[in-house]
Amino acid sequence: MAEIPTAAISRLVTYLRILEQLEAQDVSRTSSSDLAERAGVSAFQVRKDLAYFGRFGTRGMGYTVAILKRELVRVLGLNQTWNVVIVGMGRLGQAIANYPGASDYQFQYAGLFDVSPAIVGQQIRNLTVRHMDDLKTFVAQNKVDMGFLAVPPDRAQDAAQALVSAGVRGILNFAPVVIQPPTEGGAQEISDEWRAVIIENVDFLAGMKRLAFYILNPHLKDAPLTEDTE
Amino acid sequence: MAEIPTAAISRLVTYLRILEQLEAQDVSRTSSSDLAERAGVSAFQVRKDLAYFGRFGTRGMGYTVAILKRELVRVLGLNQTWNVVIVGMGRLGQAIANYPGASDYQFQYAGLFDVSPAIVGQQIRNLTVRHMDDLKTFVAQNKVDMGFLAVPPDRAQDAAQALVSAGVRGILNFAPVVIQPPTEGGAQEISDEWRAVIIENVDFLAGMKRLAFYILNPHLKDAPLTEDTE
Repeated sequence: MAEIPTAAISRLVTYLRILEQLEAQDVSRTSSSDLAERAGVSAFQVRKDLAYFGRFGTRGMGYTVAILKRELVRVLGLNQTWNVVIVGMGRLGQAIANYPGASDYQFQYAGLFDVSPAIVGQQIRNLTVRHMDDLKTFVAQNKVDMGFLAVPPDRAQDAAQALVSAGVRGILNFAPVVIQPPTEGGAQEISDEWRAVIIENVDFLAGMKRLAFYILNPHLKDAPLTEDTE
Repeated sequence: MAEIPTAAISRLVTYLRILEQLEAQDVSRTSSSDLAERAGVSAFQVRKDLAYFGRFGTRGMGYTVAILKRELVRVLGLNQTWNVVIVGMGRLGQAIANYPGASDYQFQYAGLFDVSPAIVGQQIRNLTVRHMDDLKTFVAQNKVDMGFLAVPPDRAQDAAQALVSAGVRGILNFAPVVIQPPTEGGAQEISDEWRAVIIENVDFLAGMKRLAFYILNPHLKDAPLTEDTE
């Protein structure tokens, strides 16, 4: 697994979502062509993406939905428990904490954090919102893996620094800003602390932009899928 | 523009986001290789995706960030005003209404809707939350283009039907369920009403899944980008 494009990982996540939908519709078999059509890529791309991680399905026979889903869950690491803190318990943080589906996988909200006196101390989903001053101790004591960042844009960098200093392994940034490792002394030196942390961004507005495009170009929505070859 | 894969449109949205980030960092020039690396695809793919829509930049000279951004905004239809209603004003609907950035483009929240007596009548962002009974009249009178669906999963299909009947051109579904056109009489007949509406889904959990994968496979995050050829 030395050289897998990040876009392939995003596609795996898409395939998994499609498999969940098929399962919810009681569809038990699928194929690379079927997955490809639903994902908007070519069947070749689907086969290539899956091939990075092993052999799934039988040549010419397609895939069993439940089995391929289970394998992708394993590949993505969703069969294990992830302890999560949410930083920023305004509307967005509360929406994340209450979003149905996160608990289908083993994302467990261990702690909720904010700095506002109006929010700290509130009960949300059976958890008491804590002050950011307690973040570092909490992360260490509760073996927290991930921080979801749901603060206003101008707070995002500082809150990310607090999560990095506290020792989380990854940050999922919902704020519409780029989180950047601080570079010291003008050099491109990234500290070991930041280098150890994975940062992923959620593009909250991406769906709105796709929708605008397809409203203007509805014929492309149903376009027969061409091979997305390079 | 007869045969553009849906995945290419998602990539355009990614490129636009990267250009916005570059602009925020005062970077004025970029290249297909630079965009490719940031997007996790190959430079060939970037050039191919852009070529669907015209010639941008000068061969061997790369792109001016501001110009390419302006062109993608135009291609995606984000230079025009979109009148939006949000259906479901619980935590998620409120988070969407207040998310910073939507107003950078011309998404204008014309109306907010719910069915809960506790929420209908509340003031959110200078708008009074209305009852779903008023949706159809409101959409017609206010030339509403899009509905953002932020209701609980078990309400999503009915709320989508209300938006379709009201005559919106597109629906952005934030609920973790598949919205499906009703099929009558067991046939695969989709009504004209539903056929005219574009439905896009937001995978709210996709970022969490990518983050889990990269925490387990951190070496892949910095992997040198290979050509994502087919």
